[in-house]
Amino acid sequence: MARLPSRAQNYSEWYNALVKGADLADHSSVKGCMVIKPYGYAIWEKMQRTLDDLFKATGHVNAYFPLLIPKSFLAKEAEHVEGFAKECAVVTHSRLKSAEDGRGLIVDPASRLEEELIVRPTSETIIWNTYREWIRSYRDLPILVNQWANVVRWEMRTRLFLRTTEFLWQEGHTAHATEAEAVAEAETMRDLYARFAEETLAMPVVRGVKTANERFPGAVETYCIEALMQDGKALQVGTSHFLGQNFARAFDVKFMTPENQESWVWATSWGVSTRLVGALVMVHSDDLGLVLPPQLAPIQVVIVPIYKNDTERAAVLGRAAALAAELKDVSMRVKVDDDPRQSPGWKFAEWELKGVPVRIGLGPRDLAQNRMEIVRRDTREKASASLENAAETVRLLLDGIQSALYQKALAFREAHTRRVDDYATFKQSLDESEGFLLAHWDGSAETELRIKEETKATIRCIPLAGESEPGRCIYTGKPSARRVLFARAY
Amino acid sequence: MARLPSRAQNYSEWYNALVKGADLADHSSVKGCMVIKPYGYAIWEKMQRTLDDLFKATGHVNAYFPLLIPKSFLAKEAEHVEGFAKECAVVTHSRLKSAEDGRGLIVDPASRLEEELIVRPTSETIIWNTYREWIRSYRDLPILVNQWANVVRWEMRTRLFLRTTEFLWQEGHTAHATEAEAVAEAETMRDLYARFAEETLAMPVVRGVKTANERFPGAVETYCIEALMQDGKALQVGTSHFLGQNFARAFDVKFMTPENQESWVWATSWGVSTRLVGALVMVHSDDLGLVLPPQLAPIQVVIVPIYKNDTERAAVLGRAAALAAELKDVSMRVKVDDDPRQSPGWKFAEWELKGVPVRIGLGPRDLAQNRMEIVRRDTREKASASLENAAETVRLLLDGIQSALYQKALAFREAHTRRVDDYATFKQSLDESEGFLLAHWDGSAETELRIKEETKATIRCIPLAGESEPGRCIYTGKPSARRVLFARAY
Repeated sequence: MARLPSRAQNYSEWYNALVKGADLADHSSVKGCMVIKPYGYAIWEKMQRTLDDLFKATGHVNAYFPLLIPKSFLAKEAEHVEGFAKECAVVTHSRLKSAEDGRGLIVDPASRLEEELIVRPTSETIIWNTYREWIRSYRDLPILVNQWANVVRWEMRTRLFLRTTEFLWQEGHTAHATEAEAVAEAETMRDLYARFAEETLAMPVVRGVKTANERFPGAVETYCIEALMQDGKALQVGTSHFLGQNFARAFDVKFMTPENQESWVWATSWGVSTRLVGALVMVHSDDLGLVLPPQLAPIQVVIVPIYKNDTERAAVLGRAAALAAELKDVSMRVKVDDDPRQSPGWKFAEWELKGVPVRIGLGPRDLAQNRMEIVRRDTREKASASLENAAETVRLLLDGIQSALYQKALAFREAHTRRVDDYATFKQSLDESEGFLLAHWDGSAETELRIKEETKATIRCIPLAGESEPGRCIYTGKPSARRVLFARAY
Repeated sequence: MARLPSRAQNYSEWYNALVKGADLADHSSVKGCMVIKPYGYAIWEKMQRTLDDLFKATGHVNAYFPLLIPKSFLAKEAEHVEGFAKECAVVTHSRLKSAEDGRGLIVDPASRLEEELIVRPTSETIIWNTYREWIRSYRDLPILVNQWANVVRWEMRTRLFLRTTEFLWQEGHTAHATEAEAVAEAETMRDLYARFAEETLAMPVVRGVKTANERFPGAVETYCIEALMQDGKALQVGTSHFLGQNFARAFDVKFMTPENQESWVWATSWGVSTRLVGALVMVHSDDLGLVLPPQLAPIQVVIVPIYKNDTERAAVLGRAAALAAELKDVSMRVKVDDDPRQSPGWKFAEWELKGVPVRIGLGPRDLAQNRMEIVRRDTREKASASLENAAETVRLLLDGIQSALYQKALAFREAHTRRVDDYATFKQSLDESEGFLLAHWDGSAETELRIKEETKATIRCIPLAGESEPGRCIYTGKPSARRVLFARAY
């Protein structure tokens, strides 16, 4: 195993080396697309399962809509197409054939499609085109549908998990009879995402609403959750959009109200993606490798047997198997690393790189005392504990790690969130060390864009929980109702 | 609710009306692609969960590979490209723009890709191109990877679930050090699919091997499971391929053996798809609607309260809720249909259409006697049972339905499997009533193709469990080692 670059040396190289070294993902031969390797996919599967349970507990059901979207659908909502036209994978033909000169395979010109199809960058258009068939009366509402899917957005600069041409995600698309109900749904999902981030990813997030500039193309309001990475850059972790009646109008989706009036249907959409895996890496990991919150770790506990000869080996492996069985009995995900080809030291480093929350060492001396050596990944603290009640001991430790990770990330975010009141300090703060900056803004798109051009910082959100004391815009001096959250972002 | 056409009247119309009427799926605006509606998707999710558990229990892990495959990859394995070139969705451009005359959205010619990308019809090529990076030595083997994904094959004649341009599936791709190990893997997965079909889908299947004509493009051997539909047509339910070293050679994937020799890697691939939902419908359902095996039913028990006035309503709904809670406590999937807008009769028909295995009616008279009325969907038998031990009563009934469905389908298949010894009888049998025909065949591709041209019947498989008594080919009279399974197929 090659050592990782340190975060301080080069954060970006550290991230790439870690994602590859810990076997999470790798670049593919297809530009901008990644291969999600089994260990990385296992983390995504845990996220999926947890989210899917949360969606179902809030009344949502899953469905599936076509991957390919007629070009004309995309064109129907003006802002939407504006937002996605420049990054579309376009299907134009349906057949390959041998070249006539016998040299290889060419696209058969005779198979040209009448209308080009777009590989979905998101599914509002195809779904609202379908909802027109599903919705007649208020009795057909609400529709609370989610889809687990892949999407393609032709990205120029890609980065494993954080920004890839193809990514995996879920996209919820709901239809409602009233504006209030749709707004409530969008807020519910924002809060569900926030709870998921904080409780499952151990990742503190700021809940807020996007400025008009940063809104989803076609949305009336975009709610979001934003997290802070260890390099002081922000990352948008999830978004939930109140779409008003924009897509209902574009696709002519009306319903009869209880009062027998025709009305356009109200909409929301919301999504999180494999980007969450990248966020997870960036928030918790260290120079030795991944640090995974126990709730998402594919392996929560690794047991490393330590022995010098065959007699010791038999005894230690026997006890390790019994311990593993005891932990699995209470639903822990446990691995005994009994690979005879590697030394304990090599294994320690390997499982640190892979972020396994708890490592247990078991040797002949431990067995003699009915004890085990426990090392937690996050702090690397080592302790000796009795093998009596091992399951209880490890359960407490896993719970402790889950909450310690959250507290550590929260403390980091608090230490890197500053209130600034003038533009000079604003710029200086960004240059000294990045992080969240709470500053006043006059509310105009123009000011926002100028600040972005000059500093690369964007308004991540207007925080939900921010104080609402008024002030003056750091850029124009014009009145501001409240501080907004700035940062440089991924 | 409109009545379904009967199976006898028009099997194909019955199937389409049922798939749409029971809210399983519908055609989309994209040619050949379907929308899988929540009720249909819920069945697919149950299949996924069961299969995924079976895969993991046999040592497999999930991963994810790119949707888009460079055209040149597809060309590397000669038979493979021959099999898929004519049904490819080809991505040629990466951007849309406004037309210069202001009339609509066009493909930006400047965004033409250097190399066209194919939306995966299957992933052998992109995966083996990746495995080259993963495999160095025998220590890296075996690789036991599965992928849950969507694939696109440009189909001319489509049919909901059975044959669609885009479908959902899983594709396993494994890499092995020896031929014997790869063959064993392909056989293991064939048997896993067969067990899944029989135990979970309640669908008897014939295990066998495909003839060379019907092999997967690029495979050395294709194992399959074949089921018989109620119209006497066969349906291929799942396939498992031994790929030899074909893809390793095409993508240059070698490993060092323990003896320090370089060797090509051995491969398998195996998959089942959303086609299984169509098979499920075709095997069990009747003229009143779906009949679902309890193991896959999104709702296993529906409770319909029956009352004439508000007093009765309160009492009946209270008891229905308590009964539902009791059944949910033992992990049954239960719905109380308390919709006040619909009559019990309407609800009975609706839940029959949707195939809910057990319906419980609860009225004031039942409550007075502490009893319930139970109707099973498969036979429509009605019985009265005590509300004491309701969970145990219903559990036994669900188990009974699961096995009765299997037995009924098995009896149907046996009644529609004939041994024929001459070509005249063969043709007559097909015309009288379709079904499986066990007949001798001389083993030549030519004979197989002629029989197909003349009768539309294909060799579904060379059955694994068939007797091996020799005979004479029904078409040529040449010697035959054993009977093979013929049928007209979907």
